[in-house]
Amino acid sequence: MADALRRNNVKVIGDPGRPVVMFAHGFGCSQEAWSLVALRFESDHCVVLFDHVGAGGSDSSAYDRSKYDSLDGYATDVLEILEALDVTDVVFVGHSVSAMIGVLAANRDPSRFRGLVLVGPSPRYTDEDGYEGGFRREDIDAMLDALDANYLGWSQATAPVIMGRPDRPELGQRLTDSFCSIDPEIARHFARVTFLSDNRTDLPLVCVPTLVLQCREDAIAGESVGRYVHAAIRTSRFALLDATGHVPNLSAPDEVADQILAFVA
Amino acid sequence: MADALRRNNVKVIGDPGRPVVMFAHGFGCSQEAWSLVALRFESDHCVVLFDHVGAGGSDSSAYDRSKYDSLDGYATDVLEILEALDVTDVVFVGHSVSAMIGVLAANRDPSRFRGLVLVGPSPRYTDEDGYEGGFRREDIDAMLDALDANYLGWSQATAPVIMGRPDRPELGQRLTDSFCSIDPEIARHFARVTFLSDNRTDLPLVCVPTLVLQCREDAIAGESVGRYVHAAIRTSRFALLDATGHVPNLSAPDEVADQILAFVA
Repeated sequence: MADALRRNNVKVIGDPGRPVVMFAHGFGCSQEAWSLVALRFESDHCVVLFDHVGAGGSDSSAYDRSKYDSLDGYATDVLEILEALDVTDVVFVGHSVSAMIGVLAANRDPSRFRGLVLVGPSPRYTDEDGYEGGFRREDIDAMLDALDANYLGWSQATAPVIMGRPDRPELGQRLTDSFCSIDPEIARHFARVTFLSDNRTDLPLVCVPTLVLQCREDAIAGESVGRYVHAAIRTSRFALLDATGHVPNLSAPDEVADQILAFVA
Repeated sequence: MADALRRNNVKVIGDPGRPVVMFAHGFGCSQEAWSLVALRFESDHCVVLFDHVGAGGSDSSAYDRSKYDSLDGYATDVLEILEALDVTDVVFVGHSVSAMIGVLAANRDPSRFRGLVLVGPSPRYTDEDGYEGGFRREDIDAMLDALDANYLGWSQATAPVIMGRPDRPELGQRLTDSFCSIDPEIARHFARVTFLSDNRTDLPLVCVPTLVLQCREDAIAGESVGRYVHAAIRTSRFALLDATGHVPNLSAPDEVADQILAFVA
């Protein structure tokens, strides 16, 4: 099971006897995306960072299309990492698609989790009768087609939008670089799994304290989606950040850290 | 005064005896940005399209730094075009910075205007005590510095964010191409004039019927800014579009055309 630690390039910072906070990155990112936030936890907490298989310093040879054909495969990895570290009472902080990965993991083994922090979560990106995910199915299909046809071009045009900070183009560039560092084959599959996922029925099953952190002017997960998540999780609180865009862990790390620290306390 | 028609590459489509609708483009664009919307007006209206000096097919040699050191210079051009065409009762549709240019023109000569349509307007981009423009002054300064240092790089990182359509990367690419086609020297100056403008005191002077069209998840002019504009213009209506991003004339032309047609009628 210690294989999980190597497979997911797990980094543990601080004494595991302290309160454990695990940070999980979103599509196109790696644990690097959490470094500025994690810094604020290193003196008083045990920080657990990792890369999803295919990202950052993970073992890409462990990428198994059938395992990762749904978000459940990623949730399995999270539980294996926690088991390998033998930690419980973990606060899991998940950005974007990792918010739903955390929901799935916490529902499978609530005993491991003290709480969830969902940053920019969306349980379903496509609209459906009575549900507004923000995207029409045909638009998601067109996006995935564009990604298939030219991953690097797609990344250059899309990562800055996801960042959503016209005033700080270097942030968009940083996210573009991160997108472009992923194996295109894996990125294509992970994008499909992410953007076609539907985890709405998993939300009411969450029984651990949960904090929903919502950004303004988020082109990926708009405010109504975040409020839907909050409404569907009985045990949740909702906080609207001042941060704009979809990646506040990079663009507003202090505001995100402040919110998580207050939740953990 | 017919010089104005050549200087601003004015195109008139349809009989000037019909109701006149003039479309004005925003920063980094040209009259091309209105083509899909304008199509919907060509059978029943007289459509007036033009390029601000420095953009599209305009006469860039007419770019005069002192004239265009404020938005008033651009408002002068609008009034000169209307005078050259000898038209009145014009509905002026302005996107982004051209929304404020329309406000200035209509305040200087209300007799020319039947109404204003302000698409994604912002009277001031920077925050100030008691006013939330969406950007801190230091962030705008950093953006302008990045633009000065590398206009093409800045355009590639910023235009897609302004478009705000992660599901349609080709739209972000189209806006990037448009940004990159502008003379960098003129773009630098126009960006400075645009992003450091403050036209809040001009809004209460508007006396013609006005429609404010606001997008969702707009990284440049957020909903609270659009609502500020609506609150400050007595004669205005406010409509929240389904469209996301800052350039609905390109990303949701039919929704924009429907709104303008209903307003004109």
